[in-house]
Amino acid sequence: MIASPASPAAPLEAVIFDVGGTLVDQAPAGTAVADLKAGFRPGARRLLRLLSAAGVRLGAVTDTSVMREADVRAALGDEVSARLDVVVTSVDVGAAKPDPAGVGRALAVLGVDPANALMVGDQPADQAAAAAAGIPFVAVGALRRASTSTSPPTEVDDRTSSREEHLDVIVLDHLAARLGPLIASRLLVGPLDSAALADAPALQARLTKPPGSLGRLEQLGAQLAGIAGACPPPVPEPAAVTVFAGDHGVLAQGVSPWPQEVTAQMVANFCAGGAAINVLAGAAGASVTVVDVGVATPLLPVAATAGGPTLLERRVRPGTADLSEGPAMTRADAEAALDVGAAAALAAVAGGARVLLTGDMGIGNTTPAAALISALTGLPASEVTGRGTGIDDPTLARKVAVVDAAVARLSSDRSPLRVVAEVGGLEHAALAGYIVAGAAAGVPVIVDGVIALSALLVAEALAPGVTASVIAGHRSVEPGASAALAHLGLDPVLDLGLRLGEGSGAALALPIVQAAARIMSGMATFDAAGVKEA
Amino acid sequence: MIASPASPAAPLEAVIFDVGGTLVDQAPAGTAVADLKAGFRPGARRLLRLLSAAGVRLGAVTDTSVMREADVRAALGDEVSARLDVVVTSVDVGAAKPDPAGVGRALAVLGVDPANALMVGDQPADQAAAAAAGIPFVAVGALRRASTSTSPPTEVDDRTSSREEHLDVIVLDHLAARLGPLIASRLLVGPLDSAALADAPALQARLTKPPGSLGRLEQLGAQLAGIAGACPPPVPEPAAVTVFAGDHGVLAQGVSPWPQEVTAQMVANFCAGGAAINVLAGAAGASVTVVDVGVATPLLPVAATAGGPTLLERRVRPGTADLSEGPAMTRADAEAALDVGAAAALAAVAGGARVLLTGDMGIGNTTPAAALISALTGLPASEVTGRGTGIDDPTLARKVAVVDAAVARLSSDRSPLRVVAEVGGLEHAALAGYIVAGAAAGVPVIVDGVIALSALLVAEALAPGVTASVIAGHRSVEPGASAALAHLGLDPVLDLGLRLGEGSGAALALPIVQAAARIMSGMATFDAAGVKEA
Repeated sequence: MIASPASPAAPLEAVIFDVGGTLVDQAPAGTAVADLKAGFRPGARRLLRLLSAAGVRLGAVTDTSVMREADVRAALGDEVSARLDVVVTSVDVGAAKPDPAGVGRALAVLGVDPANALMVGDQPADQAAAAAAGIPFVAVGALRRASTSTSPPTEVDDRTSSREEHLDVIVLDHLAARLGPLIASRLLVGPLDSAALADAPALQARLTKPPGSLGRLEQLGAQLAGIAGACPPPVPEPAAVTVFAGDHGVLAQGVSPWPQEVTAQMVANFCAGGAAINVLAGAAGASVTVVDVGVATPLLPVAATAGGPTLLERRVRPGTADLSEGPAMTRADAEAALDVGAAAALAAVAGGARVLLTGDMGIGNTTPAAALISALTGLPASEVTGRGTGIDDPTLARKVAVVDAAVARLSSDRSPLRVVAEVGGLEHAALAGYIVAGAAAGVPVIVDGVIALSALLVAEALAPGVTASVIAGHRSVEPGASAALAHLGLDPVLDLGLRLGEGSGAALALPIVQAAARIMSGMATFDAAGVKEA
Repeated sequence: MIASPASPAAPLEAVIFDVGGTLVDQAPAGTAVADLKAGFRPGARRLLRLLSAAGVRLGAVTDTSVMREADVRAALGDEVSARLDVVVTSVDVGAAKPDPAGVGRALAVLGVDPANALMVGDQPADQAAAAAAGIPFVAVGALRRASTSTSPPTEVDDRTSSREEHLDVIVLDHLAARLGPLIASRLLVGPLDSAALADAPALQARLTKPPGSLGRLEQLGAQLAGIAGACPPPVPEPAAVTVFAGDHGVLAQGVSPWPQEVTAQMVANFCAGGAAINVLAGAAGASVTVVDVGVATPLLPVAATAGGPTLLERRVRPGTADLSEGPAMTRADAEAALDVGAAAALAAVAGGARVLLTGDMGIGNTTPAAALISALTGLPASEVTGRGTGIDDPTLARKVAVVDAAVARLSSDRSPLRVVAEVGGLEHAALAGYIVAGAAAGVPVIVDGVIALSALLVAEALAPGVTASVIAGHRSVEPGASAALAHLGLDPVLDLGLRLGEGSGAALALPIVQAAARIMSGMATFDAAGVKEA
């Protein structure tokens, strides 16, 4: 039932990498060719794997006094070599960078116009060669740090640590600026790292506990390993909760007892630190960012506090239109909201976050959530529409009828963009973009309740496979949540009878998700502890 | 099916309290009688309520130049006054402390021998009056701090903070030394504070969220309020996990694939910080104490590390006898193990812990757990016996037969001491004592899996009502766990398919339990946040 993604209009056809210092550690001068062993930059293999799977052609251009293509391929190893459509060395072309001969040869072999390519390197000579060849360039390592040190990013914490060295994130940030955050992110969604996935159960079997005795925690640990491409996986911290707020024209149909201005009032409450998500995120050590992607009424002035919640004013429009009467928004609005969400995710990762949590606020937003779930699972409105914050039987009947009629308008066009524009909400669209970009950036995304799950259905339709990077924080009491979980094959971490939203269930699940990683790096093995096995 | 508790052989028949500075804050000199308002010492009302419910007679003796009994009763308020069987003032008897006339009058009215009573006071004059009247004395406030400052308790952290001022814990510690920790603890188990329980939903309804939307978290918050006698409840921290380790003669019947020496090896692993519980407790900010209450084989030498796990060597006997052939242990052994557990709980609370978590280790210990659950729920062995750490079908069949036969020996005598001695284990008995004492000390007890739940059945039989202070951390996959949960009416916080023990599921639940309290004190109310209600 999940529609195929619209083909992204991606002008990126090829990426050319420098090798030493870019894809792999720079070998000390004078190292014999036979002794070269590739120490890949973090994120390099993942980037090559996902770009290759997305159909982007890949090449390597390297300066070396002794190596030819076969030598470079041997040093990089079979897995990476197989992903490189072309490898050119300065020995092959008789000219070292900044001469563009090598880059030119690679593009000629690939048959790609320089404007549709990208070069990645760590030296001024790489940058100069790219400029001479007319190919856009992105810097890594010291060159990148030097080029960005005078212009720190705005609205982003300076907790970048070693993540600024992750090749996948560096290239994703460049592509986001070039193609837009959502389109760029869709390029980097793909299967988890199969080697790390396979290593996880083997490691867990060696830890001092009966095999399998940590149940769900062991599955979570394996998933984290697959997402990180490392076993044991790093502990997913620090965490960032992003709460997307929007309003809904369908409130006019009486689908909620709460007045519309409560959305803006709760945004103020989030910013002042008084809401449930503030308390729960604070307890779990997660930051809170609030994004106004479509609140209908004016926001109250907010006094920012150091270390406190951040407010991003990214309003695409003041609330949606009434989805019972026509499209909730235009496709352009939906695309803008998707980009707001994707950009928020990329900013959070650039700011140091290693796990993203979804949050949402919007009076009336369980109605579009039910419509999205009905449209994307094929289940009837009556099975996926619930009482939200608490409504009586007549109101529920009205809500079901609204959802039913809205979904019927979609007929057979269930492309994710059409669906979210027609029957969704601005925070739902933003959350879908946020999930896609979080997965693209290589971090786990913990989704909250029914709003987030409806957005995940959109995200999975936009970027098939994105759910592999997603952890369901809890099972909301909303029937649509269970329907979406079943459709996506997700087993939630918690089942606490929550129906609040805001990211509350995701924040409560965070310590358990982190514990799953800690177990894998913190426990002794049978051998090391001198404990006999059964 | 739960047996009545054996009547404790308690020589405590009456407790006489000084009033100002002991039960209540000292009023400034010269305060008019009509202006006196009782500011009760923490734990004072709880202590009076529970001692009164346990049948202990209560009295108050106070020095005052102007007040008679009726004045004192009026100042203390109806609830407390109703629990005082006698109130004597110095005006009434014409003599101030240290003259024993007032204390003597109170004991005469109650008809209690001084040796079977206890006096509680905060002044040297109180202490002198008690001595003159021949009644044991326990000091509170500055007098207590002065008398204990030269002899700090051993094996206890000095994080006592304000808990040393809690009257219930001060008196419990005295009674534990006088009557034994289990008997003393049984005196202070009773219903939760009804006023705080009733206040919780009222407070939660004023917080900025839809009513009831935090589900299970709201129930937990109310329970914590009832346990603490305060709404909002204090956040239950710091936390202490105590892992009780023991061995089992029934291992000779081939009920587990693991060799017996693994118990001692895992004790060493706990002490070295390499086990799952070390990682999970560390992540949750909980300390780990390991208690050898009945390991069969020698413990390896342990190098203690500052802030690391503590080992208490409290071995009652080197493992139980084979419960398939006769009693697992004597009643005296079972009583000793119960006291080991109760003492460990009281030491943890004295050391600053505000929430206790159960932990356990013992190769073969799911067999006695199944037997305890069968005996105390009345369910057949086949319904409550599981695969423990992982056994095949023939081993499971053997295990069921062993449990069945052992429980059959109990016939109609299902008193908790008989049951735990006949078919239990040393760590099971210790855990039962630990749970009773934790509840008596007024802190929540988070129980782990099937071993802890079997111990909770024993604890509830020994001290009816103790379960009100217990939170089930998770639903173990062992069938006996679900049987015990259902019998006790407990709804576990987590359901993660765990079957490890050690306290792992309790440690994973801890952040959620703490979050339930944080929500109640950390969230804004509708009024304060300016958010409209539905």
